[in-house]
Amino acid sequence: MTRTLAVTKGHGTRNDFVLLDDRDGTIDLTDVLVRRLADRRGGVGGDGVIRLVGTHRIPEGAESLAEDPRARWFMDYRNGDGTVAQMCGNGVRVAARFAERLGLWDGTDVLAFGTRAGVRYVRRVPDPTGRSQDWYAVDMGVWHLPGGDAAAVAGSDAEVSVLGLDAARPGLRVDVGNPHTVLALADPHELAGADLSAPPRVSPTPVDGTNVELVVALGEEQSADGITGVLQMRVHERGVGETQSCGTGACAAALAVRTWAGAGAPDLWLVRVPGGVVRVRLLPGGRVELSGPAVLVADGEVDLDVLDAGS
Amino acid sequence: MTRTLAVTKGHGTRNDFVLLDDRDGTIDLTDVLVRRLADRRGGVGGDGVIRLVGTHRIPEGAESLAEDPRARWFMDYRNGDGTVAQMCGNGVRVAARFAERLGLWDGTDVLAFGTRAGVRYVRRVPDPTGRSQDWYAVDMGVWHLPGGDAAAVAGSDAEVSVLGLDAARPGLRVDVGNPHTVLALADPHELAGADLSAPPRVSPTPVDGTNVELVVALGEEQSADGITGVLQMRVHERGVGETQSCGTGACAAALAVRTWAGAGAPDLWLVRVPGGVVRVRLLPGGRVELSGPAVLVADGEVDLDVLDAGS
Repeated sequence: MTRTLAVTKGHGTRNDFVLLDDRDGTIDLTDVLVRRLADRRGGVGGDGVIRLVGTHRIPEGAESLAEDPRARWFMDYRNGDGTVAQMCGNGVRVAARFAERLGLWDGTDVLAFGTRAGVRYVRRVPDPTGRSQDWYAVDMGVWHLPGGDAAAVAGSDAEVSVLGLDAARPGLRVDVGNPHTVLALADPHELAGADLSAPPRVSPTPVDGTNVELVVALGEEQSADGITGVLQMRVHERGVGETQSCGTGACAAALAVRTWAGAGAPDLWLVRVPGGVVRVRLLPGGRVELSGPAVLVADGEVDLDVLDAGS
Repeated sequence: MTRTLAVTKGHGTRNDFVLLDDRDGTIDLTDVLVRRLADRRGGVGGDGVIRLVGTHRIPEGAESLAEDPRARWFMDYRNGDGTVAQMCGNGVRVAARFAERLGLWDGTDVLAFGTRAGVRYVRRVPDPTGRSQDWYAVDMGVWHLPGGDAAAVAGSDAEVSVLGLDAARPGLRVDVGNPHTVLALADPHELAGADLSAPPRVSPTPVDGTNVELVVALGEEQSADGITGVLQMRVHERGVGETQSCGTGACAAALAVRTWAGAGAPDLWLVRVPGGVVRVRLLPGGRVELSGPAVLVADGEVDLDVLDAGS
């Protein structure tokens, strides 16, 4: 008798996940199982594993329910290496798409999702790029500049050296729940020439490390939602390397460019990442919203006996 | 109405494939569809895509049927980049496992598989490593030393420079349907220190390029099947880079070491590759057999509308 596990594979701007429907909290999601599911050759493959579980079925859910009793579902996010993660900006969109497909959310109202970083709110929104995909907007919470007003006025509070660029550049630190340092490049050609195969060197050295975003401003567009700034970026994620997309990194990039642009700059930014396009919107109260596509590519059954046997 | 495609994911020593059951030859497997299925983030993910198709349903099948009318099934192998490939030593085992699971082969007799490189014969065999996996043995055809007897006597007919090794080393060219150059290293420590992130430089320059195998002989073992030589190897595949496993490369490595060992050397070799263990056996008539594990990890349905929309 074969033991199987139902899985779904999905991605948001090519940040990809193995999704598990565990409404009743019966799956024993060990770190070994996470690693084997996320294994791109021996398993299903993904940057992370997302278990959608009833909030009252997971110990960490108590805080979410205290924060908002509407948070019936919890996003148990794990990195591909098996470690527990707080949140994932692209992952929460894909998890919302998954909840919608499972019939747990009808996509008309706001979905309150429990996460280890607090309750996150997801809305279904039209695709502003006109590609007719499923887009989801997530309130990513409060952001701030660790360097405060002085950094905002100066436009920088760090110096960043990147392989392939001629000299160290000024960078602006932005906190979006996790640390970022953003630097402006002149044009897409210079952006393409940067070598992110090694981590950029940031001075002063950030205690907890930092993600680094290289960003090029491409002007403004008139969209149905108003004036929209357009950016292109690449990102080096701390401890990971260059990635195709980073949700909080896109927010940090837009927030830095908006700081540099000063009064009159748009509140809406389209951010082109290597894996696609996302949109960042400034919300009242110092909050920021990230929206972007989320798709479910395949549903399947994994043979756990094969997975357990390893390669 | 969602258009879906049934897929299976499997691997042999971590060389992984998206498998399609197309017995009736109704799937229009374009190069675009192959690339999207093989895409590790936006699709299912694999080194290649294998379509199992009725031999009389594919134009290339005529040659296979002329060669052996028992070849009812054809392995239509595609590289992950969408290009057509002749054969794949690990892929044919996984395809045989797939045929067995589909009930097209009962695993007791020999399965004659049509491929673009001619009919290949697969047998089910016990796992000699005792891990109780499904092992399959494949007759890989005739091998030869392009350098002939002179190279066999000298033990080398090429010089190979590898990053991380102190000096250029003598290498022996081996043809197993595709070109290989094998060089001996002293011990596993030296093997671990080799840097295969760049292609080794081979002199004289091979016209069509060459795979390069770095191999360490680890002695002999007594097995149920007789004296078995044990090797450890790493491989740089031409046009690809370092891989976790290369079926023809394992054959080439065993054939080179056996040539170096001279008279009395075993006809049976266990070859440890980064992705697992395979076994190479010399057959009469200058032929070589490769055996190893093949597992099917998951079955699923891909949403073609999502796949077609791209990322």
